[in-house]
Amino acid sequence: MNEKSILDYETVELDIDNNALVIIDQTKLPGKIEIISLKTGQEIWDAIYLLKVRGAPAIGVAAAMGLYVLAAQIDTDDNDLFFEKLRENRDFLNSARPTAVNLSWALNRMYRLAESMENEPVSAIVEALKQEAIKIKEEDIAVCKAIGENGLTLVKPGDGILTHCNAGQLATCKYGTATAPIYLGYERGYNFKVFADETRPLLQGARLTAFELHSAGVDVTLICDNMSATVMKQGKINAVFVGCDRVAANGDTANKIGTSVVATVANYYNVPVYICAPTSTIDLDTATGAEIKIEQRPDSEVTEMWYKERMAPEGVKVFNPAFDVTDHNLIAGIVTENGIAYEPYTESLREMVMKVKGK
Amino acid sequence: MNEKSILDYETVELDIDNNALVIIDQTKLPGKIEIISLKTGQEIWDAIYLLKVRGAPAIGVAAAMGLYVLAAQIDTDDNDLFFEKLRENRDFLNSARPTAVNLSWALNRMYRLAESMENEPVSAIVEALKQEAIKIKEEDIAVCKAIGENGLTLVKPGDGILTHCNAGQLATCKYGTATAPIYLGYERGYNFKVFADETRPLLQGARLTAFELHSAGVDVTLICDNMSATVMKQGKINAVFVGCDRVAANGDTANKIGTSVVATVANYYNVPVYICAPTSTIDLDTATGAEIKIEQRPDSEVTEMWYKERMAPEGVKVFNPAFDVTDHNLIAGIVTENGIAYEPYTESLREMVMKVKGK
Repeated sequence: MNEKSILDYETVELDIDNNALVIIDQTKLPGKIEIISLKTGQEIWDAIYLLKVRGAPAIGVAAAMGLYVLAAQIDTDDNDLFFEKLRENRDFLNSARPTAVNLSWALNRMYRLAESMENEPVSAIVEALKQEAIKIKEEDIAVCKAIGENGLTLVKPGDGILTHCNAGQLATCKYGTATAPIYLGYERGYNFKVFADETRPLLQGARLTAFELHSAGVDVTLICDNMSATVMKQGKINAVFVGCDRVAANGDTANKIGTSVVATVANYYNVPVYICAPTSTIDLDTATGAEIKIEQRPDSEVTEMWYKERMAPEGVKVFNPAFDVTDHNLIAGIVTENGIAYEPYTESLREMVMKVKGK
Repeated sequence: MNEKSILDYETVELDIDNNALVIIDQTKLPGKIEIISLKTGQEIWDAIYLLKVRGAPAIGVAAAMGLYVLAAQIDTDDNDLFFEKLRENRDFLNSARPTAVNLSWALNRMYRLAESMENEPVSAIVEALKQEAIKIKEEDIAVCKAIGENGLTLVKPGDGILTHCNAGQLATCKYGTATAPIYLGYERGYNFKVFADETRPLLQGARLTAFELHSAGVDVTLICDNMSATVMKQGKINAVFVGCDRVAANGDTANKIGTSVVATVANYYNVPVYICAPTSTIDLDTATGAEIKIEQRPDSEVTEMWYKERMAPEGVKVFNPAFDVTDHNLIAGIVTENGIAYEPYTESLREMVMKVKGK
């Protein structure tokens, strides 16, 4: 066990004195906590591309802070030249993971702010970018904390909680989404018994979730994905909390592969399944889960990644979808920073999104 | 892909000319097919202990043939001395895996036969032991083949079949149990599309089932255990066939961990789940699955086995049950060599067992 808790670290941080982006190198987990300081565009691009920083919210914050770090290095008072370089940096960072929505969202938000100040001195624009990057991070922390508070109303001290994949602090800046109720409960002495699915094939549950909860002192037990029925049958689980990649207008939810297996088994054992979702992941333009395209990933993740040797015969076919869709009827509630949405989701989710837009 | 099919090999074989037990060394799979010839008690013991031969029926046959191989080496005409050595060999082999029921069952059957001939010449007893070992293997093949024929009536050409763990040829002498309908269907051009769960933590599905089906030319696709819902939702699965370790009187079935997850998900998607079980695994003395004790296995299977490095934080708790129990209401039928048992299982399973006893 590490001497410091994960809650003593920042997943993504701005080192203003040294003008650097500072992150935990997640590719070194769970073996060791290595903090790395990134100053060049190539270093920041590599960190995102190589998953040293991962998780949609954390990637967004890293990109925003990274763009500021690079903007502060643009050595000119000429606004046209500054904007040319800023666009170059934006486009370069955006190419690190082209399908990560938060990456382009954060970069575009930063760039639009700069654009709104296009005739002001470069130094003022750079300062505004710094404040905006810090604000994006603060917003992420506030959203996670609010999800935690709302989620905490659904469980009671001593409860058993199962989670899948890593929707933890390591995927965000603080608290995580699915883990936010767990961390807040831990701080208040709720003594949850948490079970973490290892989450094949990429093992985010074993490498990241079990790691971060254990390091924080939370009572966490690692299981293989196929053991969920056993812990539920034994009455060890009172609620399932998972994150999500996208929530459709009817409540169907795309999340890491295996989520819908957990949800189906939980329903058989009458265990409620809660999706923890920033309102930004609710996509009213997607009517149902059937419209969500599921990315296929390389066979090697299943047959050889992590392993000392190939664990499957050469030439065998592999099916390796990255996500699955959980039917809305299997979901007991969708926990956002603005409250909890219940069935009928078509109405409750629309209200939730309108609440944000109305702000 | 190997040039020969798994069906061209014998999992367990008696080499009469060289007085040796010949097996596929399953610890070398899926990397290579290595056939090893075992002549001494220590070699045979090691093969069973180190899982070079595994799967209840295959272990039974290996032990019976192994005991014959050792009996043929006892160099005496004195019956008392012969029986003393025979008991020594029996007890030694039996100590290789004390909890494997088929191991002691096969050794005791062999010994009882010898005992029934105690006053006959040693050479006649040895010859009878040879015939008995061959008979035990032939019976295993006949049982698997009959399970295959019965299972085949439940599916049609082109069907998608999902299986979990390895209840395959490698666990028996030929055809396997859950794979028997697949192999028989393959021989008859049924063109099944088979999906094999990798089966964490020991990966029998990836290492053994995907290997043996692929080598035989069966259309097999490897998936992680948490992908079963996705393939079922996509309509790719028409039936689930799995093996079992024990069937209780009410139909509750203990099998490899994860079986009850597959069964629960299959029921949600209206896919029938069939248990393939030699009648010998039906235990009328066990009223329900609640009476079946589930073995816990070492944490290291989940956290480090197979891996280049530890895949979970040091010190984290692990829950690693080897088996789970699938509720009888999730089971569409129990396929034995004597027919298929349906609900109400309390009656149908009793009839099935009586049929055997009446023979």
